[in-house]
Amino acid sequence: MSKNIREPGQNSIDNAVLSLLGRHVSVRKFRPEPVSEEQLAAIIGAGQMASTSSNVQAYSVIAVTEPALKAELAALAGNQAYVAECPVFLVWCADLYRLREAAKPHLNGADTYEDSTENFIIATVDTALAAQNAAVAAESLGLGIVYIGGLRNKIAEVAERLGLPELVYPLFGMCLGYPDQAPGPRPRLPLPAVLHRNRYDAEETVRQVETYDSTMSDYLRQRTGGAKDTPWSAIMAVRLAEPIRLHMKDFLQGKGFMRK
Amino acid sequence: MSKNIREPGQNSIDNAVLSLLGRHVSVRKFRPEPVSEEQLAAIIGAGQMASTSSNVQAYSVIAVTEPALKAELAALAGNQAYVAECPVFLVWCADLYRLREAAKPHLNGADTYEDSTENFIIATVDTALAAQNAAVAAESLGLGIVYIGGLRNKIAEVAERLGLPELVYPLFGMCLGYPDQAPGPRPRLPLPAVLHRNRYDAEETVRQVETYDSTMSDYLRQRTGGAKDTPWSAIMAVRLAEPIRLHMKDFLQGKGFMRK
Repeated sequence: MSKNIREPGQNSIDNAVLSLLGRHVSVRKFRPEPVSEEQLAAIIGAGQMASTSSNVQAYSVIAVTEPALKAELAALAGNQAYVAECPVFLVWCADLYRLREAAKPHLNGADTYEDSTENFIIATVDTALAAQNAAVAAESLGLGIVYIGGLRNKIAEVAERLGLPELVYPLFGMCLGYPDQAPGPRPRLPLPAVLHRNRYDAEETVRQVETYDSTMSDYLRQRTGGAKDTPWSAIMAVRLAEPIRLHMKDFLQGKGFMRK
Repeated sequence: MSKNIREPGQNSIDNAVLSLLGRHVSVRKFRPEPVSEEQLAAIIGAGQMASTSSNVQAYSVIAVTEPALKAELAALAGNQAYVAECPVFLVWCADLYRLREAAKPHLNGADTYEDSTENFIIATVDTALAAQNAAVAAESLGLGIVYIGGLRNKIAEVAERLGLPELVYPLFGMCLGYPDQAPGPRPRLPLPAVLHRNRYDAEETVRQVETYDSTMSDYLRQRTGGAKDTPWSAIMAVRLAEPIRLHMKDFLQGKGFMRK
């Protein structure tokens, strides 16, 4: 197994948190037990404690528990059954609407910049940081998660269905529940592919892909009983040639984001 | 103190991870002790274990330890002294360059979409998720961090100085080191301001701001010995009326991002 999957005791430095982070896997099969209100509050509360740019806290999260609504969102996300099957489906939204509404009474007609690309990035990053803290919190409680980028497939329909106002967009979904599967962690790129020293090393980052290609071929072969062994770079080529979600720019500008 | 700062034992649900996440503060003063190579590897390795969209792992991180370079970046980030003073300054970059270079030999002349807004969002989110995992890992080792969005103030100069190629942009910096201060956590928005049920509740999210305004006024008054008590919404109005980093769209498109 790759050195880039952390296992307890494998590194000279370890503790319970590192070990939890190192065991992360995406869970796509859930037991029917509900997530309690206390658990949900602890998870979202932990999300809120993540860093936020200038304290803007530019995100909202919609906890979807209505079965019919979960089924609709599952269909809109590309028929991912686990979206309907998980007890709680979280929709993480970048949200500049609350900020603008809060600011309004104090503006005295001043120009504002909620439609800048910078503020779009701030809201998007704030949302991702909160979501990742929530993911870690959930896993610390024995729950499993999977991020659902497919929620952007039919993003206008999702926004409409959830009643999202201007300046709010669904960044991703997150299934939450007790895992009913225990896949092993997937190897990551070798550390030197992503960690540079004092300057970006373009040659080294590309050179490391060769190593990872062979790691991932072995991993796939092992997981599929020899049926698959496509190297990572070949999978990425297919991925990069896919014209996916080309509606994003128009949708976001329509919602009031990144017009400048 | 607000109920939205988690303290051990305060909720019915708690564990060591929730407690760690609940204690997060941004650290802006560091002791001179270095961060070891083993610590850095454990921290970035934990970052890598975060979820990544279709396994693209579209990020790089540059560990800056050269004093002169840290000082330059500190100046470019708006003279934030702690950028120069922390032993390691991490520059987290969204990176589609490695992906494109890895894919190239397999493309056979196919069109690719690395310049789509969707792929820009994927790279940005991948970077943020990895960074937040790294932040949690660092704090679990007794280190402190602060995110540096100011790194986007002079983003072209930063990119030039770090040798960033096309399709790589510095999303934010992160100071890393042993804390030499112990500020208390800042209260967050009340949970009902950010957590919606099955549908976005625009009225409720704005209504909750009133509560938070009073929480934050109290908090500021307490922290400044009564000198300051500006409500959050008034601070946000000033923030929203600031024409900050309006160069982002042009810079990103110049780097090959979000052209479509």
